[in-house]
Amino acid sequence: MGRGMSLEEDINDSNAYYRACDRALIHKKPTPIQVVKVDYPARCAAKITEAYYKTPSTTDYNGVYRGKAIDFEAKETKSKTSFPFKSIHPHQIHHLKKVLFHGGIGFFIIRFTFYDETYLIDAGVIIERYENSERKSIPYEQVKQLGSYIKEGLSPRLRYLDNVDALYFKEENSYGK
Amino acid sequence: MGRGMSLEEDINDSNAYYRACDRALIHKKPTPIQVVKVDYPARCAAKITEAYYKTPSTTDYNGVYRGKAIDFEAKETKSKTSFPFKSIHPHQIHHLKKVLFHGGIGFFIIRFTFYDETYLIDAGVIIERYENSERKSIPYEQVKQLGSYIKEGLSPRLRYLDNVDALYFKEENSYGK
Repeated sequence: MGRGMSLEEDINDSNAYYRACDRALIHKKPTPIQVVKVDYPARCAAKITEAYYKTPSTTDYNGVYRGKAIDFEAKETKSKTSFPFKSIHPHQIHHLKKVLFHGGIGFFIIRFTFYDETYLIDAGVIIERYENSERKSIPYEQVKQLGSYIKEGLSPRLRYLDNVDALYFKEENSYGK
Repeated sequence: MGRGMSLEEDINDSNAYYRACDRALIHKKPTPIQVVKVDYPARCAAKITEAYYKTPSTTDYNGVYRGKAIDFEAKETKSKTSFPFKSIHPHQIHHLKKVLFHGGIGFFIIRFTFYDETYLIDAGVIIERYENSERKSIPYEQVKQLGSYIKEGLSPRLRYLDNVDALYFKEENSYGK
């Protein structure tokens, strides 16, 4: 759609929309920062004067949807041919494995910026390839085939909960929830 | 027990234990920080030189337990007589209401440091009083009565998931899950 919005902005916007209409409660977690030095200027709020970004130990997004814990990571790639695993931190793989183990819903949202296409793909699919495949990436064609295309719009910009419904709540849907 | 550990340290330690033994996946969210200025010294990691603490829009802890989304806030009070609501941010009340609305498990962990006693109390109980009571606190005796006492130990320091089991998974427990 060439709107020049980053994937993160689109997801934050979509989450705000979903929260406002009470469809889901999903937030981006704050970026973890190691604070080293704090100044307390008179009558002012604490001012952090030395701090460093830490490597996150979890994924970026989590929350509650239809009673379930939902947890995901979002990544963009400029590649036309594949999504490279090097952009995933090992601890994010570890974390998503645990999410699935404990019965949560875990997935990746992957955007191919060249095609301006965004897909939702189950964490299990990526983890299996990340751990067992010789390739250090998953081909674009496989993301298309194994993932599900996320429709875009104005509000929300990314209708990714429709994909979540179709993927993880199929039975409830077919019984006309 | 007079170990001089803060409630936050006790909970972080307990969560690390629960994660290590695969009982639950619960993390403290990073403190939200507004970054204003970042320096990039040659060949070094980005150094944040001006930043401020932001008011958190959610609770401090969340994760996955037995398939459910779990979300809670932890507070200490020095008071001998009651837990004051002024230590709860309005947006935390709002957030926990939404957690309950979406079918998640939401609660407070409250420590009375004078007695060195820690209680788990359902978010609904606190929210009801926060919104409807003339008092701006909940008496210690009511926390004892409506909440559930959290046993302490070495590992985990706070066995709060035993309380969660008893409170929120009663049926499964009685069928010998």
